[in-house]
Amino acid sequence: MAVDRTLELESDDRRATSDANLLEAEGRTATDNDETKGKVIESTEMTFRDTVIPSWKGQLTFRAFVVSALLGVMFSFIVMKLSLTTGIIPSLNVAAGLLGFFFVKTWTKAMEQCGLLKQPFTRQENTVIQTCVVATSGIAFSGGFGSYLFGMSDMIASQSSDADWPTRSMNVKNPSLGWIIGFLLVVSFIGLCSVVPLRKIMIIDFKLIYPSGTATAHLINSFHTPQGAKLAKQQVSALGKFFSFSFLWSFFQWFFASDDENCGFQNFPTFGLKAYQNMFFFDFSTMYVGVGMICPYLINVSLLLGSILSWGIMWPLIETQEGNWYAAGLKPSSFHGIQGYRVFTAIAVILGDGLYNFVKVLGNTGIALHRQLKNKESRTVLPVATDGATVDGVGAPSFDDQRRKQVFMKDQIPTWLAVGGYVAIAAIATVTLPRIFEPLEWYYVVVIYLFAPALAFCNAYGCGLTDWSLASTYGKLAIFVIGAWAGKSQGGVLAGLAACGVMMNIVATASDLMQDFKTGYLTLASPRSMFVSQVIGTAMGCVIAPCVFWIFYSAFPDLGKQGSEYPAPYAIVYRNLAILGVEGFGSLPKHCLTICYVLFVAAILINVARDTAPKKLARFIPIPMAMAIPFYIGTSFAIDMCVGSLILFIWEKRNKTKADAFGPAVASGLICGEGIWSVPKSMLALAKVTPPICMKFLSKDMNVKVDDFLATLGR
Amino acid sequence: MAVDRTLELESDDRRATSDANLLEAEGRTATDNDETKGKVIESTEMTFRDTVIPSWKGQLTFRAFVVSALLGVMFSFIVMKLSLTTGIIPSLNVAAGLLGFFFVKTWTKAMEQCGLLKQPFTRQENTVIQTCVVATSGIAFSGGFGSYLFGMSDMIASQSSDADWPTRSMNVKNPSLGWIIGFLLVVSFIGLCSVVPLRKIMIIDFKLIYPSGTATAHLINSFHTPQGAKLAKQQVSALGKFFSFSFLWSFFQWFFASDDENCGFQNFPTFGLKAYQNMFFFDFSTMYVGVGMICPYLINVSLLLGSILSWGIMWPLIETQEGNWYAAGLKPSSFHGIQGYRVFTAIAVILGDGLYNFVKVLGNTGIALHRQLKNKESRTVLPVATDGATVDGVGAPSFDDQRRKQVFMKDQIPTWLAVGGYVAIAAIATVTLPRIFEPLEWYYVVVIYLFAPALAFCNAYGCGLTDWSLASTYGKLAIFVIGAWAGKSQGGVLAGLAACGVMMNIVATASDLMQDFKTGYLTLASPRSMFVSQVIGTAMGCVIAPCVFWIFYSAFPDLGKQGSEYPAPYAIVYRNLAILGVEGFGSLPKHCLTICYVLFVAAILINVARDTAPKKLARFIPIPMAMAIPFYIGTSFAIDMCVGSLILFIWEKRNKTKADAFGPAVASGLICGEGIWSVPKSMLALAKVTPPICMKFLSKDMNVKVDDFLATLGR
Repeated sequence: MAVDRTLELESDDRRATSDANLLEAEGRTATDNDETKGKVIESTEMTFRDTVIPSWKGQLTFRAFVVSALLGVMFSFIVMKLSLTTGIIPSLNVAAGLLGFFFVKTWTKAMEQCGLLKQPFTRQENTVIQTCVVATSGIAFSGGFGSYLFGMSDMIASQSSDADWPTRSMNVKNPSLGWIIGFLLVVSFIGLCSVVPLRKIMIIDFKLIYPSGTATAHLINSFHTPQGAKLAKQQVSALGKFFSFSFLWSFFQWFFASDDENCGFQNFPTFGLKAYQNMFFFDFSTMYVGVGMICPYLINVSLLLGSILSWGIMWPLIETQEGNWYAAGLKPSSFHGIQGYRVFTAIAVILGDGLYNFVKVLGNTGIALHRQLKNKESRTVLPVATDGATVDGVGAPSFDDQRRKQVFMKDQIPTWLAVGGYVAIAAIATVTLPRIFEPLEWYYVVVIYLFAPALAFCNAYGCGLTDWSLASTYGKLAIFVIGAWAGKSQGGVLAGLAACGVMMNIVATASDLMQDFKTGYLTLASPRSMFVSQVIGTAMGCVIAPCVFWIFYSAFPDLGKQGSEYPAPYAIVYRNLAILGVEGFGSLPKHCLTICYVLFVAAILINVARDTAPKKLARFIPIPMAMAIPFYIGTSFAIDMCVGSLILFIWEKRNKTKADAFGPAVASGLICGEGIWSVPKSMLALAKVTPPICMKFLSKDMNVKVDDFLATLGR
Repeated sequence: MAVDRTLELESDDRRATSDANLLEAEGRTATDNDETKGKVIESTEMTFRDTVIPSWKGQLTFRAFVVSALLGVMFSFIVMKLSLTTGIIPSLNVAAGLLGFFFVKTWTKAMEQCGLLKQPFTRQENTVIQTCVVATSGIAFSGGFGSYLFGMSDMIASQSSDADWPTRSMNVKNPSLGWIIGFLLVVSFIGLCSVVPLRKIMIIDFKLIYPSGTATAHLINSFHTPQGAKLAKQQVSALGKFFSFSFLWSFFQWFFASDDENCGFQNFPTFGLKAYQNMFFFDFSTMYVGVGMICPYLINVSLLLGSILSWGIMWPLIETQEGNWYAAGLKPSSFHGIQGYRVFTAIAVILGDGLYNFVKVLGNTGIALHRQLKNKESRTVLPVATDGATVDGVGAPSFDDQRRKQVFMKDQIPTWLAVGGYVAIAAIATVTLPRIFEPLEWYYVVVIYLFAPALAFCNAYGCGLTDWSLASTYGKLAIFVIGAWAGKSQGGVLAGLAACGVMMNIVATASDLMQDFKTGYLTLASPRSMFVSQVIGTAMGCVIAPCVFWIFYSAFPDLGKQGSEYPAPYAIVYRNLAILGVEGFGSLPKHCLTICYVLFVAAILINVARDTAPKKLARFIPIPMAMAIPFYIGTSFAIDMCVGSLILFIWEKRNKTKADAFGPAVASGLICGEGIWSVPKSMLALAKVTPPICMKFLSKDMNVKVDDFLATLGR
């Protein structure tokens, strides 16, 4: 999950820039730079001077939660579909922000016309919706339905390298609605408690940036200015158009795919049959074209490079050694054959990249924390620092800073509630989790919860600095430590995966909540209403996400099978990570370990090169983690995403202002359209309605044979 | 051919309006209305006051004919492809004008930079190119490769109702390069001679409008003004973009059509398999989308209505009577079965519509001619008519009128040349044609050539008034008269088809030439250079068109077969018309004649309704001739064309100015791109290269069977 999280955040980063441009297009300037932000903030809060801020309870309206639930379900479907297909999840914040604004605005307009409007729509309410939707759909991601949680299932186990272990049954836990909801309820709330007491330090004292949170706040603020509202309306209209197009196109595609593995547009040999056999084809997925439009060019190019390196060069070369490096005639999914090379080389690159960034972010965090604490001490002595010009965030507080601080400090959340909540939930978890996962002993849970607050703090702080959440890296750490501790015979694989879930949920929620606090700070929403909204959103997510997963799981019996429509690629990676942690490198095919070592080192070196090369060159150095994704999923989505990049590139060349203002909306429309189509699609699958037509691609010679066969059938 | 000609001219009519809008977009006004035209003309020629007009020989540059030959080949391919697929040929004048301008402009620019430019590019030269290209590609249409000429072949005869005649061999003449070129050389030039002496009467005395010629002249004039040149450049760029798109898309489609009848995008069951079996599907042809963008909405809607009426209602109903109305289990191409209904009902509608318009245009022509002659007499007495405000084109001659008249009258073409040429060519034809077509006696030819000049005059005059050329109607008249005269046992079918060719060529060339004279008049091109350009263009056409046809004929052995990619639908219609003429209604299947009568009368009544209803309503009454086309070709092209209409409609709703200025260029690009792709496509077919992949569409159940079959093959 490391990569998707990375991508999610990297694309947030990009969106932040887009939003800045969006504001520029409207004749205003906004940057995420701390020093210049003061000026913008000044003008921002001046604009809203005459607007009344509702009380924290007034911000939590019923309509906000209805809209949140609606959007939460929608985004859960989208996130679920993305995690189960490739695991690449772009930022859906723009879509959530736009749609939230659109729905409530429509609602209030309608109410106003009926004379029933009691409360106008405020940006605080908008922030509450945003927070709630992100919390709800966040569970669809951090619940691990495409990674650790589904990695426990028999379907994934049967395709992993532990397929023939005698202790297999001990390491398998098939999904079932009951225990998943229970598990999520137990682990999802504790993260909220862990960082609440720290919010003043992070937001006000350290003045951390939280690029995603800041960008979202700018977006919401802009919606509530007159020009912003007009632009937002146009953006919603663009989103709506491309949503419809994407939805209808997916609907159209459906008719031609009576059989997922051979038929339809998702098996279109765009570049010929030979290229198709090596997984090179454009599959006409508007969703991934949209994802490509949101992700930075570098990510998309890295994906393509990785595709070419793996499916274009490495696998064909390794396949020539069939029967030599590995036994001939194995099942295509066997880990002792080519599939083993695919998955483990990818894991090597992901680990190399993850390790490098873990060390780097932790180092930076430590240094910055040390400096900030030193700085804070000096500030308590000298309220106005003499070196105010060079130290970040120090200087006479602006009008906006004062106003925001005042609002932010008004509604407190008692520290006893946070600490008490943490202890209480930890106690419940310690008792219940070992009942859900037998191999997960109670003391593993206690150990995790002892270390978790520190890690959650680290992650929230690092994310505030770099926008990079390392939740999945912490999760992998837990897999190895707990997996090794439990050991092979004690069901270490299952214990490791469960530990990963416990760890990831705390750490991910902590950074998400802090991002939301930043958004709330900048939109003058009360921290209390943010917290409540997050709690409600999380609670909704704990029910919605498992139900959505359950629909996919029931509708597509092939879920998780390699080569099918929903291969859930990260589930296999996570399980094999756990197996690696438990038993080491024993079962890898010949030379696989050597290749892995080489790629592991290469991943680190490429990262070093990116960080040390001059900025001009560094822009062109690919990201190893992105390169690793196509290694075992195939390349079609990478080609889709490059098409998205190409479209955006041409658009930017022709009309940069327009592309910046409408690109994210168009991309969101494309993503949401196909994403939402998965709802009726799963319904149809549940009702056992299969598409009526198969669009099949046959080679010339094969076609002649099939035609002869059809002729014999016909007569 | 009546319909395609109709469409061609109707769309010219539409284009005239577009060009007017195009000029409006440039801040000028132009209408085709005679009364207001004076003002525009005034400003037009004033703009060009300082431009030197080259001598008539100076207008005939070498580069002009190189470009003409190039474009002539290109448009011959396009026209040939269109005639062989559906027979609907839109106006390609915009494309010819734009591309001619573009090529010579590029050439002169390049020469200028090398310092080698001897002669600047003038609008007269542009007119010469236009005239030459239209003459060249005109032969591809009037040569009858998709109608009477190919209707003589064995391939068409074997699918017609005379398939089992004992005299079949007498009525068949298979295409061969030699006799086709000879035939065309003999019949194509005589039309030029027949109307040359009348040009002063038509253009200067009668001041006939010739909407297409006028529109082309406006287009060429606008190119040579500074703003016009800029707009033309943008239009060329739009044309180029859509040309490339259309070409590449067709290229892409090619790969998936290893077998024309079942594979590829041209058999895409867009609306499901059931609809596909009834010929309802969108076949992704950019060419016909472009054609739909050029043709008026009413044509496209009529086509769709006709599709629904025939393939949606009539054929399914008649097919329920299989075994009752006609024998069961016949070959699908048999004229004694459903195919008979399809072709003969279409013929009935075409004849009904044709007859109505023939009578109407001839009546109007007679009345107008009578009025004009009376008027002319009165004018010779009173040079300035007292009722100048009400009588068309009468009043003090404007600056432009004087200038144009002066240029037009300067270079004369001696009448003895025209008359002598006519007699000489008629003599040659009388001797040679019976040698080419045995059943065509020499006295039939003499009779045709005795009546032809009068008919040619009628057609040129009617076309000048209404823009409606009745060439194919005169051709059908010749089929019936000569066919009946020759009789069944004397090879009347072949004689009728040959007579049709002789007649059509005279009549069509006459109106084309007069259109060109009008264009020349308005662009100050010399009539002599126009005449020479037309002669050279015709000569080129007589060689190029048969060669292009030969490429198609050699490359696609299925040419003319119903249901194949190139069914040449009008070839069957023309042959069956000849058969009807020779033997009456004997061989039609049961009730077919009744249906034909009903539809024949309905066609006339619909036309009457169109002409008598108030204009608001008349806009919505469909055109019967357009409705008849899909009767036996199927509906996919009608759906393509409606998609084109829809695109244009939305574009016009969003930005009318832009749609009017660039719509025709975009449409031309789409048409030319796929049209030109037929060149490499036929080359590939000649080299026996078949596409590598078959994109096949199977029903769900069939797919399961095929998959099982493939599994047995694989192992």
